[in-house]
Amino acid sequence: MSRFLSSRNAGMDPYTPGEQPQNRKYIKLNTNESPFPPSPKAVEMASRQAESYQLYSDPNCTDLVKQGAEFFGVNTDEVLFTNGSDEILDFAFRAFCSEDFPAYFPDITYGFYTVFSRIHRLPFREIPLTEDFEIDLNDYRGLKGMVVIANPNAPTGIAKSRAELEAFIAEDPERLVVVDEAYIDFGGETCVPLIKKYDNLIVTQTFSKSRSMAGARLGMGFACAELIADMNAIKFSANPYNVNRATMAAGIGALQDVEYFEACCSEICRVREWFAGELKALGFSVLPSSANFVFAKSSRFGGNDLYLQLKERGILVRHFETDRLRDWNRITIGSREQMEILVNTLKEMGA
Amino acid sequence: MSRFLSSRNAGMDPYTPGEQPQNRKYIKLNTNESPFPPSPKAVEMASRQAESYQLYSDPNCTDLVKQGAEFFGVNTDEVLFTNGSDEILDFAFRAFCSEDFPAYFPDITYGFYTVFSRIHRLPFREIPLTEDFEIDLNDYRGLKGMVVIANPNAPTGIAKSRAELEAFIAEDPERLVVVDEAYIDFGGETCVPLIKKYDNLIVTQTFSKSRSMAGARLGMGFACAELIADMNAIKFSANPYNVNRATMAAGIGALQDVEYFEACCSEICRVREWFAGELKALGFSVLPSSANFVFAKSSRFGGNDLYLQLKERGILVRHFETDRLRDWNRITIGSREQMEILVNTLKEMGA
Repeated sequence: MSRFLSSRNAGMDPYTPGEQPQNRKYIKLNTNESPFPPSPKAVEMASRQAESYQLYSDPNCTDLVKQGAEFFGVNTDEVLFTNGSDEILDFAFRAFCSEDFPAYFPDITYGFYTVFSRIHRLPFREIPLTEDFEIDLNDYRGLKGMVVIANPNAPTGIAKSRAELEAFIAEDPERLVVVDEAYIDFGGETCVPLIKKYDNLIVTQTFSKSRSMAGARLGMGFACAELIADMNAIKFSANPYNVNRATMAAGIGALQDVEYFEACCSEICRVREWFAGELKALGFSVLPSSANFVFAKSSRFGGNDLYLQLKERGILVRHFETDRLRDWNRITIGSREQMEILVNTLKEMGA
Repeated sequence: MSRFLSSRNAGMDPYTPGEQPQNRKYIKLNTNESPFPPSPKAVEMASRQAESYQLYSDPNCTDLVKQGAEFFGVNTDEVLFTNGSDEILDFAFRAFCSEDFPAYFPDITYGFYTVFSRIHRLPFREIPLTEDFEIDLNDYRGLKGMVVIANPNAPTGIAKSRAELEAFIAEDPERLVVVDEAYIDFGGETCVPLIKKYDNLIVTQTFSKSRSMAGARLGMGFACAELIADMNAIKFSANPYNVNRATMAAGIGALQDVEYFEACCSEICRVREWFAGELKALGFSVLPSSANFVFAKSSRFGGNDLYLQLKERGILVRHFETDRLRDWNRITIGSREQMEILVNTLKEMGA
């Protein structure tokens, strides 16, 4: 820390990304990346862009916005693209939260919600999941502020139905609801169509998982035109050229290639169901996942122990060193072949 | 504006990027882009990355940091890469400014310094340039806070010597000095070597201009290890994966191709000197530029009039509708051919 760091940043608690070790080739099942490359169409369109890197990217993302609006059946002023979906979540916290309008989210969820609250010095409250790791929306009744629900939630993978979320959104128009759909394409029901009906709803999605573009950094948000305009005002006050040319082109290609997108998602879901069955047969507890990962607890190994032993055997999974999660591991769904290696390794370990 | 926008954002004043019209093919001399494509090495390295977009980019930018440290002769903990240099400037405002530590910068300079101050609700003071558009560092003596000096300044193009800046940095160790060197490679003297000597100095640079990568979004900052660590803490609390894979690879390629970089910069400087001479011959006032643009005033046309008439003729230049700049235009240095067309057009217009 330098002597110049302002005390405004005292509460700062930087995010710890999943480990990316460089020393050895691992089977990486720890950061929810896709085992598949992006659509060939995305690759081709992105590759061509480097030749015109000397020109600024379009700050309005005009072509990408058009493609996104068409794909999701919304108007062009109801969608916004950002440098990863972390950025649109950041914009939402900055735009809408304040001393009088705190953020509310589960105690067990995506780690960035507390990071954003802290760095922007915004009040927030974490609301415990139920005993069986569910979000009980009754716990959010009567709260005034911005409620952030990851659906499916992470690291549990558990999804809520659109009907249940709609009832929650509808019951209090003065409460702003952000539904973070980073993992929605693996079996959840998207709330995007609801933005037409409710002006107190923001839905965020990412190209990182279901469109295999984690390393391209592309996120998107959906809401009524007024909310999108507010977040665009933050963007134009922070980083108007936030999305680079190659990523923008890749995004258009990925949205156009519906067939590839659907094939990748179906395969992940198929492998997940098979893998969850194998884990259960080995005596694991496995939460019902609608995501590209499963959250599982071995009956024989502690969570950290399982993580360390798998790492030793060349397989990375995620472990969180917090009270309620200590016994569990989050395991990304890789290719069928990778998951077979994991299952065989677990058998060898006697897990 | 939605009913949810927090009053915290009341002072927000989003940046207006230079126009990027899509309706017609213009000679674009309005946004300080390079007329040259990026180094073939950068293009090749970036193009290959799209195939592995499914993997997150390295949040520590390890390879790029190594390459940058080597190129600039600093340690790896003395450099930081960001999604455009706007982002590192944003990080600096957030990390170091506060109620007790305001920002100070010229009244005529890069428009983003006021935007950042406003969005983060930080106190700032704009200090007028002298009559002949110079920064007089005497005007900043005795001020406690963060002083931001664009060197060369924009839109004037006027540079200060390293010796003058060093004397200013040295005279008060409790003042933090940010030298924004977006245009340094076109004839200025960089302050990067001074970070070894002064722990109250941050130098920022961009790949947008001299490395032809405006559309890739890559900026970098140099400072002592403690200041870099503070800005990294902001990064990991905001967007750890801020730089995407293709841009990171392009950055490495661009830094490696020293010959191409130097050839592009020399050519821009050569064309600038020729063009400034032509303008003067036509009766223009031209400020002495060390940047990839010139700031010039016609003796026959008002600034807005010149802008509009050139636009009509298919050439875009920049005009700022503020008091002291009203009579002037900022003209990016394009290729020799583009500048010849501009000179001929001005002659035809009787400018």
